Amino acid sequence: MLKVYGFSRVNKMARGKTRDLRVLWALEEMGLPYEVVGMDHPQQDLDTPAYRALNPFGQIPVIDDDGVVVTESGAILLYLARKSGKLMPRDLAGEAQVLRWCVAALNTIEVPILTAWFVDLNGGKGTQASDALHQWGSMRLKQLDGWLAGREFVATDEFTVADLLMTHVLGAGTDESVVKDHPNVLAFQRRCIARPAWKKAFDAYCDRVEAG
Amino acid sequence: MLKVYGFSRVNKMARGKTRDLRVLWALEEMGLPYEVVGMDHPQQDLDTPAYRALNPFGQIPVIDDDGVVVTESGAILLYLARKSGKLMPRDLAGEAQVLRWCVAALNTIEVPILTAWFVDLNGGKGTQASDALHQWGSMRLKQLDGWLAGREFVATDEFTVADLLMTHVLGAGTDESVVKDHPNVLAFQRRCIARPAWKKAFDAYCDRVEAG
Ligand SMILES: N[C@@H](CCC(=O)N[C@@H](CS)C(=O)NCC(=O)O)C(=O)O
Ligand SMILES: N[C@@H](CCC(=O)N[C@@H](CS)C(=O)NCC(=O)O)C(=O)O
Repeated sequence: MLKVYGFSRVNKMARGKTRDLRVLWALEEMGLPYEVVGMDHPQQDLDTPAYRALNPFGQIPVIDDDGVVVTESGAILLYLARKSGKLMPRDLAGEAQVLRWCVAALNTIEVPILTAWFVDLNGGKGTQASDALHQWGSMRLKQLDGWLAGREFVATDEFTVADLLMTHVLGAGTDESVVKDHPNVLAFQRRCIARPAWKKAFDAYCDRVEAG
Repeated sequence: MLKVYGFSRVNKMARGKTRDLRVLWALEEMGLPYEVVGMDHPQQDLDTPAYRALNPFGQIPVIDDDGVVVTESGAILLYLARKSGKLMPRDLAGEAQVLRWCVAALNTIEVPILTAWFVDLNGGKGTQASDALHQWGSMRLKQLDGWLAGREFVATDEFTVADLLMTHVLGAGTDESVVKDHPNVLAFQRRCIARPAWKKAFDAYCDRVEAG
């Protein structure tokens, strides 16, 4: 059985934003059976030699698919899409569009958004450097907004793992603050989280991490 | 013929670090024919409607492979590996290790390194936020150093696109400042840039961008 290493409890502020949800959402979309290995944090379960052997960066999510260990939420989604033949076209040209938008989510959109938050958390709020990071993020969202004009999904005409990843990078279903000034992005995010598989994954996650 | 959109000139400081080189290096490794479309910057050639239609973020690199347009250096490498059957195992489990380490390079290693540089460039040097970013980056490099102990390459026993990408993220062949305190990472980077295909790609690039 495919194992997903995810959090066993999550504080209220971070609930919904942890990256195990990207994988859980994808597995629900694909209808693949799995079990969750609940990890406690910070560090208790993540900083053990056994876990470091799975992921040297000591983070979740990790999957263990009958011995195939994959880390990095983005890589796990692409692996599951290839394995299941779902949420990604099977031809090389179609796959390329999904690759491109998965990487754009991780390496073009997430970079300024995540680090602007990190810098502000570490005393940078209101500084020139923080402003520059926020501007960088806004510029990328504006460009993404233009791309999404007249498009239902980001990579192809169908919902793919690139949409799932982009939606979660942008604040998942739990936070619209990042996208609120970008109407096409906001509508896109709402369209994606309206999917039953997101609701199913998110509800099960909440049940688990609230009790944890 | 496969077209690579890259820079036609690059200032001395950035030479070697621009992301078109990731693609050019890969194409040399794979022995695929290509031509370079030299783009002037900042903005002159990148901020046109025609180019924005290829890449809404107005950046290089982009490839146009007989109508298949791919952006994002990481996605281009994965596409080329799938297309050529080179620099990536053909089985799903082997491919997953390459996916995982490509994404780790882009979403775990590059994030703190790139943004620490960006924050320092924007007046943040010496601030608490800058220190926190540098610490984040050092922690990731230390973890990578541990992973590389006793390993020749990062994802599999052979050189793959994940090694190429990780090497370039870490400062390419032109800058050892990021990796100098991490002996396994330093040795890994040197091992990768000792490859003839890097030298060939880098020499041709220098000839082009110095003249530009
Ligand atoms: N690039 C990684 C990032 C994973 C990540 O940030 N995981 C967080 C939770 S969302 C974590 O495990 N944090 C605990 C820690 O770093 O100690 C991915 O996308 O999978
Ligand atoms: N995530 C993108 C980043 C590409 C990127 O940063 N390109 C830079 C050159 S290395 C660029 O085009 N800069 C010009 C600009 O942003 O105006 C990738 O990996 O391809």
